[in-house]
Amino acid sequence: MAKFIMVGENIHCISPKIKAAMDAHDPGPILERAEKQLAAGATYLDFNIGPARKQSKGLMAWGIKLLQEKFDNVPIALDTADIAEIEDGIKVYNRSKGKPIVNSADAGDRRKYIDVAAANDAIVFALCSKEGVPSDNEERQVYCMEMLEHGMSLGMDAQNDMWFDPLFLVIKGMQDKQKDVLNFIRWLSEQGFQSTGGLSNVSNGMPNEVRPQVNSIMIAMAINCGLTSAIVNPCEVQLNHAIKTADIIMDNNLFMDSFLEV
Amino acid sequence: MAKFIMVGENIHCISPKIKAAMDAHDPGPILERAEKQLAAGATYLDFNIGPARKQSKGLMAWGIKLLQEKFDNVPIALDTADIAEIEDGIKVYNRSKGKPIVNSADAGDRRKYIDVAAANDAIVFALCSKEGVPSDNEERQVYCMEMLEHGMSLGMDAQNDMWFDPLFLVIKGMQDKQKDVLNFIRWLSEQGFQSTGGLSNVSNGMPNEVRPQVNSIMIAMAINCGLTSAIVNPCEVQLNHAIKTADIIMDNNLFMDSFLEV
Repeated sequence: MAKFIMVGENIHCISPKIKAAMDAHDPGPILERAEKQLAAGATYLDFNIGPARKQSKGLMAWGIKLLQEKFDNVPIALDTADIAEIEDGIKVYNRSKGKPIVNSADAGDRRKYIDVAAANDAIVFALCSKEGVPSDNEERQVYCMEMLEHGMSLGMDAQNDMWFDPLFLVIKGMQDKQKDVLNFIRWLSEQGFQSTGGLSNVSNGMPNEVRPQVNSIMIAMAINCGLTSAIVNPCEVQLNHAIKTADIIMDNNLFMDSFLEV
Repeated sequence: MAKFIMVGENIHCISPKIKAAMDAHDPGPILERAEKQLAAGATYLDFNIGPARKQSKGLMAWGIKLLQEKFDNVPIALDTADIAEIEDGIKVYNRSKGKPIVNSADAGDRRKYIDVAAANDAIVFALCSKEGVPSDNEERQVYCMEMLEHGMSLGMDAQNDMWFDPLFLVIKGMQDKQKDVLNFIRWLSEQGFQSTGGLSNVSNGMPNEVRPQVNSIMIAMAINCGLTSAIVNPCEVQLNHAIKTADIIMDNNLFMDSFLEV
């Protein structure tokens, strides 16, 4: 098995500091977060500019050039509700270290993100939901299959370039649904699919001091079920160590005494 | 699902302090370790007097009386290679808080521990091995079935009173076998069996600072696969928290913000 892939989530316009840097096209704060995430083991960097805004015109392409020039063509997940920005960004994207990721499609209004990925030989994150939270795994499977068929009809390499997202659910309020999410990840793995997801949603609303603990145990279980990547904060030490340890147990990476440090 | 059961491993003659206390019939060090493990959430206490020795004659019965009188008839796992001591101990055992556990049978020379459990309406830990380490899960299943048939032929309630142990293996040297162990736990769970095991073996030979990390991620994965109990050090905080968190995710225990403290 391949090592688990961390997609670093920290360059996100939800952070006031990053939003200000994006609006001002100020490289400093963005490069700083990129560097820390890469040092912590992120393979991809997520670049999230949020919804379409006047100020964000051309922002995705600017960010991609900035990050790839500084960090040896680091592969990037293009994350925005503004599909024109994604198309624009891919035009300047350098593929030497990996395809761009279109983040993200679903089986409803965002199905067109699959079209963009297919038209540009990109990877797509494909959320197994349509309107709101899928009520069970039967529903998740239906949406997965709908997106799969659509991607394949457009010529996509589904096994490698469609990364399905089970939709991680918040424990506070949906505690009894967590096993469903894990079982769906196992099903995706049994089909030979790549998978991903926004892990930290599971601990939303919990006290800050327990969130890394909950995220860490959830990711360990998810990796045991065959999850191949997640959108995470790689700089969170407990989570980072959980992923490294899970990779050792699942034989995705060779054990050495210093495995937590490397 | 029921909460995960911790069997506290700390009253073990391998500790020089405990061995001296056992030899001298000195309650102090034994009661101290028992109290700490119960405070940390152990359900059962393992009382391990090791192999047959002249000094240990009557020791099991003495230990059971000591622990049960002090801690409200706490249930105990009777752990020794001296089968006569187990039979002797069960005679004084008070069942008001749970059956005694005979620790442990296997499918080879130790099959007779199943006989002792069956004759005394006890639980038995049943190690799925015969001579040395099982080479794969087919072998584990064969041994499991042999023990199951034997226990049932003696009238045991197999679903409740035979707790099968997959034999946790050391990662240093058997890294590629860890997935087998987890898959076997899943198989046991799918059959509706109780399960257990000596978890800490997975991190044997590793630097002390990484052992709790490795044990914690392994137990999270094992609980995800359906493990129902393990023989652990409940006072190890990282492991203890991993178990509590795994129980939350698997919906074995109700979430509250303070779940790590209770």
